Amino acid sequence: IPPSLSSFYLSLFLPFWGGNKQYPGTMKWGWLFLGVLLSLGTLSWAEKGLEIPEYDGLDRVHNLNAKNYKSVMKKYDVMVIYYHAHVGNNKNAKKVFEMEELALELAAQVLDDFDDEDIGFGLVDEKKDHSVAKKLGLDEVESIYIFAEDEIIEYDGELAADTLVEFLYDVIEDPVEIIDNERELKGFHNIDEDIKLVGYFKSEKSPHFIEYDDAAEEFHPFIKFFATFDPKLKLKLNEVDFYEPFMDEPVIIPGMPLTEEELVNYIEEHDRPTLRKLEPHSMYETWEDDINGEHIVAFAEEDDPDGFEFLEILKEVARENTDNPDLSIIWIDPDNFPLLVPYWERTFDIDLGSPQIGVVDVKDADSVWLDMDDDEDMPTAIELEDWIEDVATPNFSGLENNKESRGRFSL
Amino acid sequence: IPPSLSSFYLSLFLPFWGGNKQYPGTMKWGWLFLGVLLSLGTLSWAEKGLEIPEYDGLDRVHNLNAKNYKSVMKKYDVMVIYYHAHVGNNKNAKKVFEMEELALELAAQVLDDFDDEDIGFGLVDEKKDHSVAKKLGLDEVESIYIFAEDEIIEYDGELAADTLVEFLYDVIEDPVEIIDNERELKGFHNIDEDIKLVGYFKSEKSPHFIEYDDAAEEFHPFIKFFATFDPKLKLKLNEVDFYEPFMDEPVIIPGMPLTEEELVNYIEEHDRPTLRKLEPHSMYETWEDDINGEHIVAFAEEDDPDGFEFLEILKEVARENTDNPDLSIIWIDPDNFPLLVPYWERTFDIDLGSPQIGVVDVKDADSVWLDMDDDEDMPTAIELEDWIEDVATPNFSGLENNKESRGRFSL
Repeated sequence: IPPSLSSFYLSLFLPFWGGNKQYPGTMKWGWLFLGVLLSLGTLSWAEKGLEIPEYDGLDRVHNLNAKNYKSVMKKYDVMVIYYHAHVGNNKNAKKVFEMEELALELAAQVLDDFDDEDIGFGLVDEKKDHSVAKKLGLDEVESIYIFAEDEIIEYDGELAADTLVEFLYDVIEDPVEIIDNERELKGFHNIDEDIKLVGYFKSEKSPHFIEYDDAAEEFHPFIKFFATFDPKLKLKLNEVDFYEPFMDEPVIIPGMPLTEEELVNYIEEHDRPTLRKLEPHSMYETWEDDINGEHIVAFAEEDDPDGFEFLEILKEVARENTDNPDLSIIWIDPDNFPLLVPYWERTFDIDLGSPQIGVVDVKDADSVWLDMDDDEDMPTAIELEDWIEDVATPNFSGLENNKESRGRFSL
Repeated sequence: IPPSLSSFYLSLFLPFWGGNKQYPGTMKWGWLFLGVLLSLGTLSWAEKGLEIPEYDGLDRVHNLNAKNYKSVMKKYDVMVIYYHAHVGNNKNAKKVFEMEELALELAAQVLDDFDDEDIGFGLVDEKKDHSVAKKLGLDEVESIYIFAEDEIIEYDGELAADTLVEFLYDVIEDPVEIIDNERELKGFHNIDEDIKLVGYFKSEKSPHFIEYDDAAEEFHPFIKFFATFDPKLKLKLNEVDFYEPFMDEPVIIPGMPLTEEELVNYIEEHDRPTLRKLEPHSMYETWEDDINGEHIVAFAEEDDPDGFEFLEILKEVARENTDNPDLSIIWIDPDNFPLLVPYWERTFDIDLGSPQIGVVDVKDADSVWLDMDDDEDMPTAIELEDWIEDVATPNFSGLENNKESRGRFSL
């Protein structure tokens, strides 16, 4: 941290990215609206209970190089490494990097001595420390890699201290969460935005549970693994149920009992859900996972009756088509991305005051949207399905075929 | 904006507060982890659809004074005014204010020409523009006042562009949202974290609906008002149902049809719910609304089976005690405040890895927590209710009486 800032007693974490020419292809963190903590001096408010400490100016983020990286990493249970582009003499690029570093400094401070977990933060320079990157297996510049036990987890979400810290809380949890009773099972069913699995095993010592636990480590924390040892919950012994997001009914993973390999293979084959929600901690990963350069995108505000209604219809379509590998819809709740709303409205020429569904070309943001101007009369699930089949899925006419008539489509 | 920053093409919005001695009693924005957008130059990533424009350096936030405030405010449908403490020569204080200004600048840019609504932003200096503040009725320094139509709305949440912008989207919506069908009614029932009302009226022209709409304006956007004109939804004509957060059953507001005044009086008498969630857009307002200097605070992560289970028990207690005006519990989902988690764990000496409930003194953050170490065996609703009665509610023994034995209480 430059003394001019740290002497300022300034805790500033603005990880961001600027599409600078020195950093080709690394724009994904360009426009981030990020969590920031910035405070000066001592707090002295009359009411207590909502303060967090200001950045203390200590330097906690390590510069990793060929000489020190092994000894530094040995000190921590979890190591968070930002593999960054080399910063040259460009003033803007320097400023950008300084901000990113401060973001990581704040995350490091907040997590200092947290729950007896030693979480370390480090930087690896693409140019200067290429050998370190190679040895650690870092391949995507401007990504964050998290080394936890034997796993390497790539974080491809917002470079914001709050989103990153929240993600790290998940990382340090056990990969399998145990369900103890009916109410917790209800809590399990309440989670519907992630891929989740549940298995019933005889005990923690069951070899089948151990296989399951090993498989969980491979996908932790992106896919949620649960298990129970309680026969009262009426699951079948050694059966593993796989739930896509927003599906009420699970798929029973075939083969029982299952080995780690069988579980991993099944999940890898089914890890792109029919309907998935865009989340800050994985937004770039999701966006990069397009189908033939396109995304079907649905905007719906869940806390709004219109949005809720449309989402119900969308879930119905997803449930009917869960076996279609060519169908994957990204649901965006505008409430999660308030600063992007006007940008999306301009870019896609839509009104996000009511629900929208369209097909977006990820190369040029060209798009086509279903005409639902009269939101008192939403499409039925069947009408929506037909529309999607017509304009969106590659097995049908496809967006490309509709290029001439880009614009709004009616049912 | 200082040219050194704007020339930087730097969009930086870090509204925050630093408890500087020049600003006594204004610490509430001291430690904010805030939404930030910071970007440099032009974006050039291969994939499109997730960018927002960088700050363009234009000065959109007005400095209001006695001479210009009327003419400036006339230009906008909605005016967002930050009533700030005077900035003297202190370098830190200047820096802080500069950041706050940039936060507002970004919000102003994002909302520029949004949905044909003209949303203006302005600054009123406590010292220099005292007369303006007096004329506009601004009384709390370091607060944001939103002038929309005939209403003045005080915003007492995070001074962060994303939270503020999201709040403004709600402000510009109609105060009453119309429910058109069964599915939208289901969406209405799905909203459980806010106080909400629903009324069934003959039509938009019904004088009773007009009274209802006028009452809605008084509480907009903090309390959600819904109405339907559809007899199929089986509500009673001119009946208004009042739902506390997390309550399945409404209270029918007595007197039917209701006048604006009757509605306003009823809501004002019932606007502190038995169980309420801490939300970023109103967190300070909620925290300041203590009962005898104390809060009953429950931490529970809804997306975790343990947390979900505890929350179900808590809701049961709240439903049983909804008529007790001395009981008001604040539920905090740690997922909404990741950077505060270690602070809360230290301050309250608790582990937020599992649910917690306690009583917090807002003056010194002294607290007492229910011992639930064995989270496989949570308290029943009756046990939890007894504990709350014993340590927390002023009608019973009260926290004060337990001061000597502060620490953990077992059931």
